[in-house]
Amino acid sequence: MLNRISLNQITIDRSSLEEAVEGCSRADIPWIALWRHKIAETGLAESKRLVRDAGIRVSSVCRGGMFPAATANGRQANLDDNRRAVEEAAELGAEALVLVCGPAPDRDIDSARKWVAEGIERLVPFALDHGVKLGIEPLHPMYAAERSVIVTLDQAITLAERHSSQDVGVVVDVFHVWWDPGLYKQIARAEGRIVGFHVSDWIVPTPDLLMGRGMMGDGVIEIRRIREAVEAAGYKGPIEVEIFNRDIWDRPRDEVLILMKERFSIQV
Amino acid sequence: MLNRISLNQITIDRSSLEEAVEGCSRADIPWIALWRHKIAETGLAESKRLVRDAGIRVSSVCRGGMFPAATANGRQANLDDNRRAVEEAAELGAEALVLVCGPAPDRDIDSARKWVAEGIERLVPFALDHGVKLGIEPLHPMYAAERSVIVTLDQAITLAERHSSQDVGVVVDVFHVWWDPGLYKQIARAEGRIVGFHVSDWIVPTPDLLMGRGMMGDGVIEIRRIREAVEAAGYKGPIEVEIFNRDIWDRPRDEVLILMKERFSIQV
Repeated sequence: MLNRISLNQITIDRSSLEEAVEGCSRADIPWIALWRHKIAETGLAESKRLVRDAGIRVSSVCRGGMFPAATANGRQANLDDNRRAVEEAAELGAEALVLVCGPAPDRDIDSARKWVAEGIERLVPFALDHGVKLGIEPLHPMYAAERSVIVTLDQAITLAERHSSQDVGVVVDVFHVWWDPGLYKQIARAEGRIVGFHVSDWIVPTPDLLMGRGMMGDGVIEIRRIREAVEAAGYKGPIEVEIFNRDIWDRPRDEVLILMKERFSIQV
Repeated sequence: MLNRISLNQITIDRSSLEEAVEGCSRADIPWIALWRHKIAETGLAESKRLVRDAGIRVSSVCRGGMFPAATANGRQANLDDNRRAVEEAAELGAEALVLVCGPAPDRDIDSARKWVAEGIERLVPFALDHGVKLGIEPLHPMYAAERSVIVTLDQAITLAERHSSQDVGVVVDVFHVWWDPGLYKQIARAEGRIVGFHVSDWIVPTPDLLMGRGMMGDGVIEIRRIREAVEAAGYKGPIEVEIFNRDIWDRPRDEVLILMKERFSIQV
């Protein structure tokens, strides 16, 4: 299983891309998920070189998406930015480009959902040309107003099914979906469409909407059960550890990477 | 419409039950929703007298529920407490007893959901004897670990449908359900089963999981659209304003009640 572990860079957000790659090398972590603002800091060519030289593979680029906007010009600008994200994912040989689909620009959530569908539709041919798979990630409903109007696996799969399973899949993140009464039914339905799997934990009491994620084992999510369901649905790829948590950010990088591997072995 | 407005007591949490009732009288608010810890402070008989003398009606008692527990004894204790809640709701002539169904005692969310169904089933005959309607309130999924494993209207309706619509219904709170892609379909499905409707708003950025609710109009929820759907599904009863927000708690009570009526007229 440890040959599938991937460090999602946000877990050690205070580190640069270079430091994250070095950390993975030392900790024998074979995969990494890169964030675009970190790639921008280091530069795309240099990021690619660092990762390649370390013999590490890129599980995903985080993130495309953010499709809705109040105007056609705004939506075009968002699409253009998504094309740059596709180019980066292609250059880095990422397994997928994660799509966090974006909030509504106003109260009209139905229109925002239509713009997401439209944005993905317009992006697919470009992604296909670049050999990049798109992974629609449903976010927890508590992010519906600020990050994504796509909040359930059901929705994400329905969007993905408008396209070939070669081009568009879904990303399952335990933190975002664990509460869903239809979870296991939807994971089974996603068979052949899962292009990413993310782990962390839901800690109690939950300290914060964004920064409240925990290390696997510190919370209430049935991580192993979900992992087994995702595997039964055909996903055998890298498993990203993606934790937004200031306490973890404050700890020494190497310590976090070791802890992450230990918990991964026991809890995932 | 203002003849349907109800003050959910939590909106002015720093006031006693007596102060809340007086405030409603002054502000010409015809309904109130009472919390059990406030009823306990004032005493049940005195609470009943205060409300009756003021000519105010009780839209609901908050709250029953919290069914799951790790042991049969624990679940029995929870049921006993629910019976006391039913007695209080009966004594106060409340339109419904709101059920916040409770979290899992551990990671096993499926078992917790079974205990909720079992708890409601055991409570129904007692509620029926006392002439009290039970209203299952799905909570926002961000409360799944701490307050309720029932997180969608779909789930709540499915639970309610095990019983007569005379005995068990659902409570629709815009804050808890606004994100749901199946919202309007589920509201229509709930026809004849809606026993309560709560309004507030989802503010952006969202400051806190529990205390982040806003006054109607200050956030992104399509409150009027949801109210119209709830009405089309046959609900014509009181509409509770239920806002957990420290800034609102810090303001003078009468000012909050006036603002609440103004916003209700415009936004609901």
